[in-house]
Amino acid sequence: MFSPELIQQFKSIIGDNYVFADEETLQHYSHDETEKLSYLPSVVLKPKTTEEISAILKICNEQKIPVTPRGAGTGLSGGALPNLGGVLLSTERLNQILEIDERNLQVITEPGVVTEELQNAVKEKNLFYPPDPQSKGSCFIGGNIAENSGGPKAVKYGTVKDYVLNLEVVLPTGEIIWTGANVIKNATGYNLTQLIVGSEGTLGIVTKIVLRLIPLPKFDLLMLVPFHSVEKAGEAVSAIFCAGFTPSALELVEINALKITSDYVDNQTVPVHDGIAAHLIIEVDGNNQDVLMQDMQAIAVLLENYDTDEIFFADDAQQKEELWKLRRKTAEAVKLKGYTIEEDTVVPRAELPALINGAKALGVEHNFDVVCYGHAGDGNLHIRIRKEGISNSHGNAEMTGILAELFKLVKTLGGTISAEHGIGLIQKTYMPIVFDEVQLNLMRGIKKVFDPNNILNVGKIFDI
Amino acid sequence: MFSPELIQQFKSIIGDNYVFADEETLQHYSHDETEKLSYLPSVVLKPKTTEEISAILKICNEQKIPVTPRGAGTGLSGGALPNLGGVLLSTERLNQILEIDERNLQVITEPGVVTEELQNAVKEKNLFYPPDPQSKGSCFIGGNIAENSGGPKAVKYGTVKDYVLNLEVVLPTGEIIWTGANVIKNATGYNLTQLIVGSEGTLGIVTKIVLRLIPLPKFDLLMLVPFHSVEKAGEAVSAIFCAGFTPSALELVEINALKITSDYVDNQTVPVHDGIAAHLIIEVDGNNQDVLMQDMQAIAVLLENYDTDEIFFADDAQQKEELWKLRRKTAEAVKLKGYTIEEDTVVPRAELPALINGAKALGVEHNFDVVCYGHAGDGNLHIRIRKEGISNSHGNAEMTGILAELFKLVKTLGGTISAEHGIGLIQKTYMPIVFDEVQLNLMRGIKKVFDPNNILNVGKIFDI
Repeated sequence: MFSPELIQQFKSIIGDNYVFADEETLQHYSHDETEKLSYLPSVVLKPKTTEEISAILKICNEQKIPVTPRGAGTGLSGGALPNLGGVLLSTERLNQILEIDERNLQVITEPGVVTEELQNAVKEKNLFYPPDPQSKGSCFIGGNIAENSGGPKAVKYGTVKDYVLNLEVVLPTGEIIWTGANVIKNATGYNLTQLIVGSEGTLGIVTKIVLRLIPLPKFDLLMLVPFHSVEKAGEAVSAIFCAGFTPSALELVEINALKITSDYVDNQTVPVHDGIAAHLIIEVDGNNQDVLMQDMQAIAVLLENYDTDEIFFADDAQQKEELWKLRRKTAEAVKLKGYTIEEDTVVPRAELPALINGAKALGVEHNFDVVCYGHAGDGNLHIRIRKEGISNSHGNAEMTGILAELFKLVKTLGGTISAEHGIGLIQKTYMPIVFDEVQLNLMRGIKKVFDPNNILNVGKIFDI
Repeated sequence: MFSPELIQQFKSIIGDNYVFADEETLQHYSHDETEKLSYLPSVVLKPKTTEEISAILKICNEQKIPVTPRGAGTGLSGGALPNLGGVLLSTERLNQILEIDERNLQVITEPGVVTEELQNAVKEKNLFYPPDPQSKGSCFIGGNIAENSGGPKAVKYGTVKDYVLNLEVVLPTGEIIWTGANVIKNATGYNLTQLIVGSEGTLGIVTKIVLRLIPLPKFDLLMLVPFHSVEKAGEAVSAIFCAGFTPSALELVEINALKITSDYVDNQTVPVHDGIAAHLIIEVDGNNQDVLMQDMQAIAVLLENYDTDEIFFADDAQQKEELWKLRRKTAEAVKLKGYTIEEDTVVPRAELPALINGAKALGVEHNFDVVCYGHAGDGNLHIRIRKEGISNSHGNAEMTGILAELFKLVKTLGGTISAEHGIGLIQKTYMPIVFDEVQLNLMRGIKKVFDPNNILNVGKIFDI
């Protein structure tokens, strides 16, 4: 517990109304979307400005008080969990879109803006910010920066890191910096911007974000392709790219995940036949409807070589929405069925069949159910495990052993353990599978340069 | 001078034939393409493998011997100059393309491969590696990684950083690491890959490179648009993007630069009328010829609002080549006319007219000639200055003062001092204009984490 003097200091910085130490608030901020983990902070602070955050961090740095930054709390790796107690610093009041610069195709925003709201705001100006994590309706753009989020559009448009031009960051010492410049090409010193992106709030707190935008594509087309074998579906993914197509989304949902989701959302649109093993959801977008039609048809013809069932083309906006809903609700649906946290494996895309087969084989060997779905075009496969008697994967020795085997396979295939969720608290156990002590020590060294007193989001990504 | 024992140690690692201390070799490696600067190394080493580089660096680290890594020596900021003497380590013998992975659209290469050769090799497989610095016919891909190079295609396809997936790096201590994984999405720890890209050989020596490739576009169209005012040309650049077009190249050449180049290459193709102030070279590419024609026509119609002269469409491959030659030879031509080193300013693209006007105004105020050309679509303007009596800008107090004023203007416009050339030796004087001591100290701290004994390319980017 903090002293009344310290609480008073915080109140004098951000106002009495934004310092919380009541049980209900502490409980609310003790967890995020990461399994059933919960850690109580000593206090929750809701500053409004960069300067307030700077003043808070100066105090915490001086007194070596742990600080956990938090966006919307939608993270899946525990990055926003206040694992050491101390200060939980919420960015929810830094919630303004500061400027949409239509001349330069840029937007300047605060971190506490909901991603979808940001997307809608720039869409009104005919501009496009593509990264679209499944949680886009509730997550913050600041959290997306922290985790280097992806989403279905990443396959054509890249992840968050490909859109961040410049960041205002409060360092753990309280100093305020800009990491770069508002330009799309930059070779001026070390890339501090890309060091902050994906650093999961361990190096500084992002307070302003300059994002590159692109012209909004005018049209998109969507189809659902059923396959009789998961392996063939995986091979088809690679074939689409090798034939020169770059879909704007290429998602895979295995049949058992689709069946669960289908029941959950009361699907009447998409046929779920017997004999189907997996579906690909394929979207193309662009400015010329005819070209998109040709591309879709050419992709459909190409896929005939991969043992497909009848292809379902979404005819109108409503059918597209139904189809996307099935994909978006998959995580929620399988979670309710008792599957554990969504793993975030990623491999070179042609290795997808090997990864799926490997995960299934592990399931047979260790007697667990496994469902796979995700951003197949990126080689990014979400895997969930259900095993009798295990409700939480984190801290369970058997589950940890199984996941370590899975991640070793991923490493062997040229991949890594997180594509878009980050490492946070719960995946750091597995970091030595993909990095040895040399790389981890480089990361620890960088952490120390930014955070000499080791106060900011400590215990995330790696142990110090 | 090094002791015979040390020379012998190097010979035992890489073979007698690859250790050079003769005058001619030392002279050859004493300079790059950066003005008239020259620094003699004590020895030139040409290792063949990662392991040899590791063994060399271990010795140098132990004995605190300065090491300067060098690619093809085409740099424009002095990154490969052996400013402290010591070991000049050339990567020219690491010159193999190791694997073109057609299934995953990736290439694994050593650093000493000429960029254009790499591009041609993947092109044979119908694949595309877009970054194309002007020196692509002679520069190495490793140097491109070090400088985060760009080129005309960057406007649509991004710079080197957007293609680097994973790097094998020998640290100054001799340890060998991989920075990431061979995947297009990655949220696994700090982004060491992007920290190495653009770090100008100060953090490690890159020995293997995994690059993402994309399908090769089938067609391109090219046009040259003359403008009666430089300012209007600058405004037109921004207008093209705001209208939703993304050209695959959008270059600007001011008339005095074009005239010099036109004489230099004996241009018979492109008309250079009186009354023209600047030209834009505009390329579009894609897989549908009709769509490209429509886009070109729509862009041409749009540009009519910007006081253009008669547009010249390149009709065939030869005309395209002639046009590109004019652009590619510009730097060489104006250099021969006594203009100093190519500055590498970059601003948000709509600020281009303000930058051009500002540079011209500085010229009037300080009595110097200025030519502008470059990658206008990126806001990346190369500026060259010619002033009676000054042959070298580096170290000249008057020229340093003028450039500082120019860079302050760039900063005011939201830009920075290098887009694609890097900071190296000669631009570090100006770093305090865009970064204050807080950011520079973060960079120094990172340098120390990677290079505790401070041996690798010291004195580049910033002073320690």
